[in-house]
Amino acid sequence: MTLYLIGLGLYDEKDITLRGLEAIKKCSQVFLEYYTSRLACDVEKLEELYGVKIKIADRDLVEKKAEKEIIEPAIDGNVAFLIIGDPFAATTHIDIRLRAKEHDVDVVVIHTSSIITAIGEVGLELYKYGKITSIPFENDNITTPINVLKANQEAGLHTLFLLDLDPLKNKFMSIGEAATYLKRKGVDENILCIGCAGIGSQKAQVKIRKLKDMVNEPFTRYPQCMIIPGNLHFMEEEALESWR
Amino acid sequence: MTLYLIGLGLYDEKDITLRGLEAIKKCSQVFLEYYTSRLACDVEKLEELYGVKIKIADRDLVEKKAEKEIIEPAIDGNVAFLIIGDPFAATTHIDIRLRAKEHDVDVVVIHTSSIITAIGEVGLELYKYGKITSIPFENDNITTPINVLKANQEAGLHTLFLLDLDPLKNKFMSIGEAATYLKRKGVDENILCIGCAGIGSQKAQVKIRKLKDMVNEPFTRYPQCMIIPGNLHFMEEEALESWR
Repeated sequence: MTLYLIGLGLYDEKDITLRGLEAIKKCSQVFLEYYTSRLACDVEKLEELYGVKIKIADRDLVEKKAEKEIIEPAIDGNVAFLIIGDPFAATTHIDIRLRAKEHDVDVVVIHTSSIITAIGEVGLELYKYGKITSIPFENDNITTPINVLKANQEAGLHTLFLLDLDPLKNKFMSIGEAATYLKRKGVDENILCIGCAGIGSQKAQVKIRKLKDMVNEPFTRYPQCMIIPGNLHFMEEEALESWR
Repeated sequence: MTLYLIGLGLYDEKDITLRGLEAIKKCSQVFLEYYTSRLACDVEKLEELYGVKIKIADRDLVEKKAEKEIIEPAIDGNVAFLIIGDPFAATTHIDIRLRAKEHDVDVVVIHTSSIITAIGEVGLELYKYGKITSIPFENDNITTPINVLKANQEAGLHTLFLLDLDPLKNKFMSIGEAATYLKRKGVDENILCIGCAGIGSQKAQVKIRKLKDMVNEPFTRYPQCMIIPGNLHFMEEEALESWR
């Protein structure tokens, strides 16, 4: 039978596609990967709309028990594995697909929105972003985001920083924390940054500030991310201006 | 009132989100941007499912008459502007949003899947792609894709090439044409390439070949794109192996 890897999008229960919802309804078991992102609605809201019971899959289940809990049941029945955002975007669930193939389980992928493309809403061209990077909670000795920023800056490209989160502990890195990290690591405090909160919701917050001012800038929605723009085309400048 | 910019996703009428469909149903006029991509289903199929009449918006309408045809009607009524893929992903429709704001028209963006994230299905990490580039039909004197490739290669990053298309003329660049272009421009003919056709459909074709062999490799689905991978992590290698 089939393992469906289904994206749920960014905001609430209505971000699933018609195809995704149709697939869920064929499944006898439905898992929700719930450790790399979160939605703005409760799991009960999803269950109500989808008309199914959802099992929460934490990191331990996905990384250590997926074979037994998710893949083996898909040998004889249809199983849905729901992923917030697009299935293979911010997090790679390639591994679960490879393991399913080993068991001769068909895998069907159903895409939807991801922060990686929804960020286009800010008004900077997606073609002009360089490598994406993440800032983890434990970052005292982490320099990857700084190195990525430097390489992108040299090429005139925009840099998207995704911020760490731990939804099961209700812990989300804020834009202020990310700005503090960048400042501490020596990024020019006068550089222009774009703070983005709740992208994909109907009330995204986008603010443009110098790095030193972003440290204390309040945002209320989560998840949050940050951009340091590279060279700006006049249309991009106009788009940024429209958020001021 | 409101101008809804609604993504339709990559494949057929069922790639819209529940939120997107709900928004269409509030609109008195519905336009489909139909010059930067195409779906695998007819417009009639969309009209049937959405229960609305759809007006085709070609480049001329969007770039020259959007103000009168799309934005002004949204001053007093709800208008939907449908975009294949995600609204601001492969093409920038930022301009239409900016002009709507000038007219005090509320703009609501409804995201869905885009080739830029759906390409994650191939198994290479989205974090490890560099700048994205496009190969246009008229490419004798075009070197941008080559320059982007070189810069990404130097940084060990993957390069995604989007291929030109003209849906209203039913004209789509093939992977073979793209490979021919790259070879002609001096890219090493033994380099490994990944040809991807129909990503987002339920039957994506993914083939891994040397550039010289990609020139004549047949693919039947459209749109098509191509990847030249950078440094590969072992999990990425395993994912590529699974397509062979």
